[in-house]
Amino acid sequence: MSIRNLEYMFRPRSVALIGASNRLKSVGATVMKNLLAGGFEGPIMPVNPKYEAIQGVLAYPDVASLPQAPDLAVICTPPATVTGLIADLSQRGTKAAVVLTAGLDAASKDGTTYQQAMLNAARPNLMRILGPNCVGLVAPRIGLNASFAHAAVKPGHIAFLTQSGALATAVLDWAKSRDIGFSHFVSLGNSADVDFGDVIDYLGSDPATRSILLYVESIKHARKFMSAARAAARNKTVIVLKAGRVAEGAKAAASHTGALAGSDDVYDAAIRRAGMLRVYTIEDLFDAVETLGRAKPNMGDRLAILTNGGGPGVMATDMAIERGARIATLSDKTISKLDAVLPPTWSHGNPVDIIGDAPGERYVAALNILQEDDGADAILFLHAPTAISSSLEIAEAMIPSLNTMKKPVFASWLGADAVVEARRAFMLAGIPTYQSPEDGVNAFVQTINFRRNQESLMEIPPSFSSDFTPDTDAARSVINCLTSAPMEQISGIAQERISGSS
Amino acid sequence: MSIRNLEYMFRPRSVALIGASNRLKSVGATVMKNLLAGGFEGPIMPVNPKYEAIQGVLAYPDVASLPQAPDLAVICTPPATVTGLIADLSQRGTKAAVVLTAGLDAASKDGTTYQQAMLNAARPNLMRILGPNCVGLVAPRIGLNASFAHAAVKPGHIAFLTQSGALATAVLDWAKSRDIGFSHFVSLGNSADVDFGDVIDYLGSDPATRSILLYVESIKHARKFMSAARAAARNKTVIVLKAGRVAEGAKAAASHTGALAGSDDVYDAAIRRAGMLRVYTIEDLFDAVETLGRAKPNMGDRLAILTNGGGPGVMATDMAIERGARIATLSDKTISKLDAVLPPTWSHGNPVDIIGDAPGERYVAALNILQEDDGADAILFLHAPTAISSSLEIAEAMIPSLNTMKKPVFASWLGADAVVEARRAFMLAGIPTYQSPEDGVNAFVQTINFRRNQESLMEIPPSFSSDFTPDTDAARSVINCLTSAPMEQISGIAQERISGSS
Repeated sequence: MSIRNLEYMFRPRSVALIGASNRLKSVGATVMKNLLAGGFEGPIMPVNPKYEAIQGVLAYPDVASLPQAPDLAVICTPPATVTGLIADLSQRGTKAAVVLTAGLDAASKDGTTYQQAMLNAARPNLMRILGPNCVGLVAPRIGLNASFAHAAVKPGHIAFLTQSGALATAVLDWAKSRDIGFSHFVSLGNSADVDFGDVIDYLGSDPATRSILLYVESIKHARKFMSAARAAARNKTVIVLKAGRVAEGAKAAASHTGALAGSDDVYDAAIRRAGMLRVYTIEDLFDAVETLGRAKPNMGDRLAILTNGGGPGVMATDMAIERGARIATLSDKTISKLDAVLPPTWSHGNPVDIIGDAPGERYVAALNILQEDDGADAILFLHAPTAISSSLEIAEAMIPSLNTMKKPVFASWLGADAVVEARRAFMLAGIPTYQSPEDGVNAFVQTINFRRNQESLMEIPPSFSSDFTPDTDAARSVINCLTSAPMEQISGIAQERISGSS
Repeated sequence: MSIRNLEYMFRPRSVALIGASNRLKSVGATVMKNLLAGGFEGPIMPVNPKYEAIQGVLAYPDVASLPQAPDLAVICTPPATVTGLIADLSQRGTKAAVVLTAGLDAASKDGTTYQQAMLNAARPNLMRILGPNCVGLVAPRIGLNASFAHAAVKPGHIAFLTQSGALATAVLDWAKSRDIGFSHFVSLGNSADVDFGDVIDYLGSDPATRSILLYVESIKHARKFMSAARAAARNKTVIVLKAGRVAEGAKAAASHTGALAGSDDVYDAAIRRAGMLRVYTIEDLFDAVETLGRAKPNMGDRLAILTNGGGPGVMATDMAIERGARIATLSDKTISKLDAVLPPTWSHGNPVDIIGDAPGERYVAALNILQEDDGADAILFLHAPTAISSSLEIAEAMIPSLNTMKKPVFASWLGADAVVEARRAFMLAGIPTYQSPEDGVNAFVQTINFRRNQESLMEIPPSFSSDFTPDTDAARSVINCLTSAPMEQISGIAQERISGSS
């Protein structure tokens, strides 16, 4: 559809919860608890004829008796009741609803499905519906938690849109433990009305949202999705985890959301062409947010590796090549400058192994030399703990140089306890930092892919096809004729001349 | 070479440290500290003419003045001194040395390298040498820490052998934070004498070692390695992280250890054929130990997925197929049994999505039904946190059934805080448990590959090639001749007859 009335969904001033409950662990009780705990300012009005009050808030027996038309209604009552509720709400002037209820694809009395009947009831007043069969909606910046997720959501600058409710709860839990906040958290469910395209279109102009993360199994309205995504990707980082890559996975996705996933190659091309970044695991999704938010713009695919041990350098090299990056060839000038500052046993090539006993100054010297080599586009820094040099001392020695680097630097402190403080120092200094050499390489490759995709987004297609040769005579004759003929004849004449000359 | 005298390396009764030091953060001081802190019972004798005592222990000026010949000597003095020290030690009767010193590939006075001169000095009395250019050796079960690693090492049942010193320290740090212990931790360095084959051969009959983990960049003595690995893989789990997979990585490995890595396909085939398991990251290396130690024997590649949400099921399906496993086709009987216990909205296929509100009993019921389906070889259990059911309650409900399962079950509790207790309960119950659906699938695939490799290890090659046709007449004439000819003629005649008839 469009972004029409979505402001009532994402910035409501009042909310009604139809099916609110006091029954412990029911969906109605969980959503009510979340709504009250979220810090939402407008009135929260529970509706349930069985209770006088729900969790301390006066309850209303039905939609008709609500003291005002809510901007947003959240519905978690049985499938057969939804259509009637939508009709009542729509008539009272409510413009948006979140339908948590599952099972609306069953047949209703009039021969269609409950879902179709619900959409029909919403149409006359253009009421917008999120769901059905979703976990709900959280907009922490306005304190709105209209979901039955188990965890609180911190405000932040990431919007997360998911077709899977299970991933919604898992990602919220994961994000909470890492102190990651969200501008919006949207569980789309079956996308009967509001879908990826609508929400991306709406969020594309939301100043609080810097990154948009998508968990996608299938896209129903491809054209709308592409146009919204292309627009959003011009000023936000849009990262896509697309599942259902193989036939068996697509089949599982179909049984899940009832939609056919389509060829993965098509999705892959579309994601690239629209300037988005594709990732393959939830962890990659958040790593990509970190990387694209922190790393300096990457201008190429040639990686220089700076390490205090050969093994991690070899592992990083393997992965870089396997993922499509290149290992930079260092210039002779770089090699001789490195010879001057490194012990004689250094590797004399890339990866630049500066030997296990390297103190901070040796890292800094090598870093500054690599920074000047035009044959390298980015630097991967690897450190394995040693008893000889303290990781924190090395980190502190390096940070001033890293802050003035023009090239993107990706850092990986291998190990655990011995490098915790060094990792923290790097992260506080805004340097993209990863747990393993492989994760660091992966981040570098993400920046390459992201840059390529952004370039194809900005590319203007040629205005005519390359095998076109202008027929100047035919064109001139058309123009001569047009300048002398009356208006109503023009179209016919032009058509005739052009066809005749081709 | 062989396992000759390796007992003095791995079970010494006395140790001398040549180059022990009081200078803070030097290698000599770090090794002395580690030796003293390890809890080693035999005498630890520091050698250094500059000090009267090192870290409180009486020091000796040279090898000649040591009160007894140490079983093991640890050497961290400059390259030019090593050969003389080895000669002195060997003459006094020391049978093993760990040479930490790097740079022995430089030329010595007599035209060969320091390394070759060192080996020549060790040969007459069959003294064994680990290194040079290594981090050292730790054998926590006897309290021996003859290394300059930064972290203490807990006793356990894993032997870790590494060609990279940097990976040694990173892995020790990582293992410490996860409370993982080792029977032996061996940094091979340049493997001038003692190499992978020797150590694997020695550990193959060590009852304290259950798993042998290898970080390999190159194997010099392939035949010895293969025979040691095949023997060890019959009663230990041998897991290999082989780096230098691509040409660029192999080149980096060559500059690192001075050895050519060789074709990766050859390594791959060798690892498979010897009943070992190949992994690709350090994390996989330890995941594999967990999996192969905990999971029930896996008899096939058909996976049933049990989940409380569609999305994780789709992601697991994608990964299973991409990694070469299969998604089990459930029998009609299984489907109808599941119909009887699951809500009508369940997925009606594999992945078995039992819906977000699933309590523990529903998981148990579905698990018991899947367990009976002969079309599935293993079960992957996935759970995303919900506000409706507590993860711990679900875990506790499932554990009794899981303990009686015949099929291997791999579990993944998605999320963080909300599932910490459930994860812990599963791990205490000995159920292989992973952070993400992808890790769970990866573990399953590891068991498939391991089983295949173990099968090819046990396979007896045919005793003659398949295109062989016996030449009965020629054979008979050889036998006739042999039974009548004198002994000295036999060999020549047999040779002649067989050649003539071929």
